[in-house]
Amino acid sequence: MKLSIIGAGNVATLLGQALVQSGVVIGEIFSRSLVNATALCSSIGGSPIDSVNKLNPNSDLYLIAVSDDAIVDVLGQVKFFDRLLVHTSGTVGIDVFEPFSFEKYGVFYPLQSMNKQLKIDFTEVPFCLEANNDKSLLFLHDIARSLSPKVYHISSAQRETLHLAAVFANNFTNYLYQIAFEITKDNDVPFEILLPLIQATAEKINNNVPADVQTGPAVRHDVKTINEHLIKLENYPQWKELYQVFTNLIEKSTK
Amino acid sequence: MKLSIIGAGNVATLLGQALVQSGVVIGEIFSRSLVNATALCSSIGGSPIDSVNKLNPNSDLYLIAVSDDAIVDVLGQVKFFDRLLVHTSGTVGIDVFEPFSFEKYGVFYPLQSMNKQLKIDFTEVPFCLEANNDKSLLFLHDIARSLSPKVYHISSAQRETLHLAAVFANNFTNYLYQIAFEITKDNDVPFEILLPLIQATAEKINNNVPADVQTGPAVRHDVKTINEHLIKLENYPQWKELYQVFTNLIEKSTK
Repeated sequence: MKLSIIGAGNVATLLGQALVQSGVVIGEIFSRSLVNATALCSSIGGSPIDSVNKLNPNSDLYLIAVSDDAIVDVLGQVKFFDRLLVHTSGTVGIDVFEPFSFEKYGVFYPLQSMNKQLKIDFTEVPFCLEANNDKSLLFLHDIARSLSPKVYHISSAQRETLHLAAVFANNFTNYLYQIAFEITKDNDVPFEILLPLIQATAEKINNNVPADVQTGPAVRHDVKTINEHLIKLENYPQWKELYQVFTNLIEKSTK
Repeated sequence: MKLSIIGAGNVATLLGQALVQSGVVIGEIFSRSLVNATALCSSIGGSPIDSVNKLNPNSDLYLIAVSDDAIVDVLGQVKFFDRLLVHTSGTVGIDVFEPFSFEKYGVFYPLQSMNKQLKIDFTEVPFCLEANNDKSLLFLHDIARSLSPKVYHISSAQRETLHLAAVFANNFTNYLYQIAFEITKDNDVPFEILLPLIQATAEKINNNVPADVQTGPAVRHDVKTINEHLIKLENYPQWKELYQVFTNLIEKSTK
């Protein structure tokens, strides 16, 4: 299987490395910066290009891993129409391909936050796949299965839902960790004390509905503790509103 | 070592079970409900009592694991003053003992959310200890070390800080999981797709400052995605404010 990659960022790098390990051969790697394209080629093979219209029409799959805003621009520069193109975005619909004349297209979305500085275990990554025809979907399915057992066929509308849910469960959660980090640091308490609790909270929902394992002063309607926390948060006015919004939501959800 | 336990709830049950496994012998177990005290005694030994003043003054340690509001009431009923008493609360200061005439007292706080329905690995639980004298602190230290390598000497002020930080990192995080659960469920998307991402986010901060691994539309200043999310959240007006508060905070933190 020959793969060309459009992009040389986090997703392009990590997916490219994993696919090469599973036996894929790289055709071209595009980046606006030839330096970045060359760097990735030196790691996983292929020919660096800095213009999309230099792509050869002889790869089995073209993986578009650029920023969401750049996808349409990339598609407009592709000069052949009979090859399978996929993007890797969690938020862009499959309809982004429709204004063009491509025969085969789809979405190959690994639902994991990707940072090429950090190792990633792809066997734990769910792949959300979509295609405009069944044959392409099966082709993408087999590629995804070579990386992970967690492969799902997910429509664009479902993918949007997933992405929104992930912002809550992942991005906002990480910001809560940062708040805890800053509060403990300011008060000379080792942040590490909180780490086991954080892991346990995340693990608990593998086997429980989150609402069933909700703990804390809000779910107990423990007004005294809540008021003490609000007093302490006078030192952190930027987070007081967040504390109140959460407390109200949790209290309401368990009345 | 002989231990009496005041309380028969989640903390009393889980700590009692773990301490008995490490070789401790139970004296009395108090609960306002004799049924509950008897049930716990049938699991870990000891004599059930339904009045604090029936406690015998011959245990080496009296572990008070009742709701925060009930601690003062319990202390007022103890009829002896030369034995070591500790409470297990994350939010009550050591000064709760001061109005009484106890010689030796302290705090034995396992920083983990406890639910007797769920198994707990105490070797992963940090214990936050405090006492009014060094000898008692060392005694508590040895007991905690028999359960976990993670033992910290933490003042009441530090403990308050920890508890506040844990509300953000644990209780509020769990509520974010619940939001993701409900959004996916409403849209016929399997919640399980999100679980690897959630675990990865929690694990990442074992080796990174949370702010350094923040991802998502807010940190990218991706206004288009944020606006699309806000439109989708018209169906979830109760969570729209939360989305906006987080987004503003994350955007500000990374300007």
